[in-house]
Amino acid sequence: MEYNFLQKIKSPEDVKKLSYEEIDKLCNEMRHCIIDTVSKNGGHLASNLGVVELTVALHRVFSSPDDAIIFDVGHQSYPHKLLTGRFDRFNTLRTKDGISGFMKPNESPHDYITTGHSSNSISAAYGIYKAKKLLGEKGTAVAVIGDGALTGGLAYEALNNAGNTKGNFIIILNDNKMSISQNVGALARGLTKLRNQPKYRDFKFKVGKFLSKLGVFGLKTYRLISRIKDFLKSVVYRNNIFSSLGFNYLGPVNGHDVKAMESLFSSAIMNDKPTLIHVLTTKGKGYPYAENSPKNYHGVSPFDIEAGASQSGNLSYSDIAGKTLCNLADANEKICAITAAMTVGTGLSDFATEHKDRFFDVGIAEQHATAFAAGMARGGMIPFFVVYSTFLQRAYDQIIHDAAIQNLPIKILIDRAGIVGEDGETHQGIFDVAFLSSIPNVNIYSPSSFDELERAIRKTAFNSELAAIRYPRGLQNDNYQGNTDGDFTFLKTGSKKLLVTYGRLFSNAIEAQKTAEFDILKLNKIYPLSNEMLKDLLSYEKICFFEEVVLSGSVSEHLGSLLMDAGYRGAYEKYTINDEFVPSNSVSAALKEYKLDSDSMIEIMT
Amino acid sequence: MEYNFLQKIKSPEDVKKLSYEEIDKLCNEMRHCIIDTVSKNGGHLASNLGVVELTVALHRVFSSPDDAIIFDVGHQSYPHKLLTGRFDRFNTLRTKDGISGFMKPNESPHDYITTGHSSNSISAAYGIYKAKKLLGEKGTAVAVIGDGALTGGLAYEALNNAGNTKGNFIIILNDNKMSISQNVGALARGLTKLRNQPKYRDFKFKVGKFLSKLGVFGLKTYRLISRIKDFLKSVVYRNNIFSSLGFNYLGPVNGHDVKAMESLFSSAIMNDKPTLIHVLTTKGKGYPYAENSPKNYHGVSPFDIEAGASQSGNLSYSDIAGKTLCNLADANEKICAITAAMTVGTGLSDFATEHKDRFFDVGIAEQHATAFAAGMARGGMIPFFVVYSTFLQRAYDQIIHDAAIQNLPIKILIDRAGIVGEDGETHQGIFDVAFLSSIPNVNIYSPSSFDELERAIRKTAFNSELAAIRYPRGLQNDNYQGNTDGDFTFLKTGSKKLLVTYGRLFSNAIEAQKTAEFDILKLNKIYPLSNEMLKDLLSYEKICFFEEVVLSGSVSEHLGSLLMDAGYRGAYEKYTINDEFVPSNSVSAALKEYKLDSDSMIEIMT
Repeated sequence: MEYNFLQKIKSPEDVKKLSYEEIDKLCNEMRHCIIDTVSKNGGHLASNLGVVELTVALHRVFSSPDDAIIFDVGHQSYPHKLLTGRFDRFNTLRTKDGISGFMKPNESPHDYITTGHSSNSISAAYGIYKAKKLLGEKGTAVAVIGDGALTGGLAYEALNNAGNTKGNFIIILNDNKMSISQNVGALARGLTKLRNQPKYRDFKFKVGKFLSKLGVFGLKTYRLISRIKDFLKSVVYRNNIFSSLGFNYLGPVNGHDVKAMESLFSSAIMNDKPTLIHVLTTKGKGYPYAENSPKNYHGVSPFDIEAGASQSGNLSYSDIAGKTLCNLADANEKICAITAAMTVGTGLSDFATEHKDRFFDVGIAEQHATAFAAGMARGGMIPFFVVYSTFLQRAYDQIIHDAAIQNLPIKILIDRAGIVGEDGETHQGIFDVAFLSSIPNVNIYSPSSFDELERAIRKTAFNSELAAIRYPRGLQNDNYQGNTDGDFTFLKTGSKKLLVTYGRLFSNAIEAQKTAEFDILKLNKIYPLSNEMLKDLLSYEKICFFEEVVLSGSVSEHLGSLLMDAGYRGAYEKYTINDEFVPSNSVSAALKEYKLDSDSMIEIMT
Repeated sequence: MEYNFLQKIKSPEDVKKLSYEEIDKLCNEMRHCIIDTVSKNGGHLASNLGVVELTVALHRVFSSPDDAIIFDVGHQSYPHKLLTGRFDRFNTLRTKDGISGFMKPNESPHDYITTGHSSNSISAAYGIYKAKKLLGEKGTAVAVIGDGALTGGLAYEALNNAGNTKGNFIIILNDNKMSISQNVGALARGLTKLRNQPKYRDFKFKVGKFLSKLGVFGLKTYRLISRIKDFLKSVVYRNNIFSSLGFNYLGPVNGHDVKAMESLFSSAIMNDKPTLIHVLTTKGKGYPYAENSPKNYHGVSPFDIEAGASQSGNLSYSDIAGKTLCNLADANEKICAITAAMTVGTGLSDFATEHKDRFFDVGIAEQHATAFAAGMARGGMIPFFVVYSTFLQRAYDQIIHDAAIQNLPIKILIDRAGIVGEDGETHQGIFDVAFLSSIPNVNIYSPSSFDELERAIRKTAFNSELAAIRYPRGLQNDNYQGNTDGDFTFLKTGSKKLLVTYGRLFSNAIEAQKTAEFDILKLNKIYPLSNEMLKDLLSYEKICFFEEVVLSGSVSEHLGSLLMDAGYRGAYEKYTINDEFVPSNSVSAALKEYKLDSDSMIEIMT
């Protein structure tokens, strides 16, 4: 396809110049470009196809970057990137040093803030808005947030704060009836009601027409009608969570009708109180496969456009976790599974179907998921909260306060632990070891194979531990599918050098051991560390620890502390992520960069 | 006073047997007992006086512990403790091994879970509720939550989840028109509206009476009226956030009228959908000083009942922080202050008055406070988020994701860092060093005196750092009021022993140095550690590090790691909190227990 319009768009100002006919063609090109690029590089598809017209309408009414437009999560910012001078480089999407799959300030002044985690856009936009007003700068701030992201408590905290302000702060609710999984909870039910209400604008229009017929004599009648109008308005439109939190509510409006959206956006700018505009979009719009099955086209690997994306037949760690929980739940009625809007990603689809009454999708609500799990454990159930490492960061306080202080035996399955690859800085699972090991009563396990993951889940399900089991994104490494027992395993060869590691890196160590000579200490339980193994360590001349987490608070730091206490006098080297954020890259390239691949291990241990 | 009724209450069942006249007397005794005990031991006063009748009504309708009653925060659980078999020991309130100032499961089966941090009660109660239903156990679960706690996102996440359930899950909204400070935000405005609405029960009653007059022939009329009734009901009562989240809304009801509350509570039990009952209470009820000035009687030190509590004339670290920010804001219009419903506690009262437009009380919303600060920093302001250490745990993800990844120069002032004393496990500020040091780009400072706190605030205000400054609760130690410069200070005496410490413990070290002979390394910046000082450390024979935080992720662990890397061969001892929760105790006794007092230092360094 020739991108006749797209290539002419150097900045949002160029979008403002187009006729509606040209806009149609531009939208068509944008969709084509997104599908084409994602089919090659992988990435988020359905969410971006859903907001093409919405993004065009935003850039026609608002003046970015004077007006700050914040896309919540940012996985739907591809159209925004295409319209803000990044079409030329868009083919580098999600590659090392290429265009990020999320908003990224160092990429463009139109990306105000880094995004990636859900539900922060209202807070950030409101902060920027307040700064603008205090500094007397021009422009406003706009948060574009999905209905899924609105289930996050952070979004509500921001609504409560911003709803009390004066001035034209604006929220666009991008309602596509689903977050990553089907949206859940009472809010979703409320939105469905709103969707089916007569349109506010139609109503206003009709009342206006009626009033104009009354002529100059109708002042009393006008007042009366105004009152009735206000009353009816309050009946029909005030009955929603946004108006009860102080927002002027506009909509719902068709999110694929640029003209209609422009009109509402323009009126919101003129308002002297905060406005929320309810926009209805269709996820996957324009690519039939994605439109029919948006769940499967949320985040995709490279695929054939004609044939559609095929689901990988290979089992992942997520699948094993889900399957193990299902089997446990078959046999024991106390086993429950909790997800924070990640049913598919965490492998819980079967559990959700087979054990409906013990499956809880609580929305994008990791705080509640944890405190709720604590309540369930207190009530005698065995709750497993299955969550990505990076999102568990949100529940740090609840793990401490609601679970660990009472030593309640909740079980946390931490998916996507370690380096995750192309999603970059915002999604790496490199902090969980540090923050969990700081919490008394938490026991952390890190299996190295599918079988070990299953064993860890089965073992911790029925003990009284607050347990966290962390495992990486994706597949098992071919060269290790073993199933070791106990908290640690020594592979001794009589060498004076010892390599210590855990999780998927163990398979790299095994690979390296084929070439270089060294012993291996494989940790299964990574915190607290077993004192039992310490005495065996003291005789080594050199100990090297490899792990894919940040250094501060790492297991290697904790082990170093124990070694020092025990009077170890050999060399001790830590190969970790040296307290920096890990940018987008393939997992294998990133592991190489941090010297965590088998080649580096050979070099270091030789 | 003789507690004739109180001493007869051995369990909640005894409360059910009393007449309303006796109930009045019981309430009177409870108030007297609470005022008397708090005047001696210190504690929370106004919130407990406000819920005397509410607690009585709860225990007359519900059957604890079959029905789980969860008091949010738990600082209002004193009446609950008096009615659940703890009157005899109530004089030990907030003392070591005494009755806790919050809910505590090992104290009584009536305290289902540990509480202390705000807004988790709905999550916990809903978890317990679900467990009961799945296990087929009798009873329900009731969350008692204040209007302040409802501003926390965690509560909203739970409402969204629980609002979608079937069955008689119950929330009591204890609306006293204020959280710890005056309540803020759009929600508070909405509650005020609800307060002024005609009462639901009156309405229902009148319609019911009217219907009864229609007789057997009125079936059609009945249906019509039912519809009109439903319509009107939806107009008047659905217009609130709770009903839009799926809850049956009852109230508002007078929270000092036991009979009226009993009636609503009973009807909620019969419901097959979740109910929220809006109860209006008066904070400080029954003690005129507290009723007139509930803010000053939220948490109090021992006081004279006749004269009332007097505000301490001594300056605290909080006062210094507030004063310094005020002065900075006078001179620079970019300085802003943000609090999460802790204006008074964090010393920001003057700032709130003097710089109204740059002061933001965002509600009990640490997540939003942090992301909002990041937005403000991005917009060019200099935002200071002032927060208790223990509550900052809620913002771990936002510090990583919204501030640190972009290296946005937000400033976090961490009050109540270290051991806090009587509030116990849930409120200790012992995790911030571990979780903050795991985050790249975060710089942590720990001043040892008022002047050093002021200097740290002034220094970091205008640099481009993401800075966190931590300081203890309360007063400056008399024997150190100095003002050292730079990231660290060496006090060398030519000894081969070195004591390393920071913050308020430095004054203990100085004290100890009068008796024992050792050098002191005082850290001002505690993370990242300056490499510059390392070389000077290598020659010591013994280095002892003292700090009042958990061991895992502590500065002493990080320093140990560096020492090991640098080839240090001497002894290295870490005196910290060895990964355990710290129970209620006086600060000085707790410091002694962890060998952080000057006597222990003398013993260790000699």
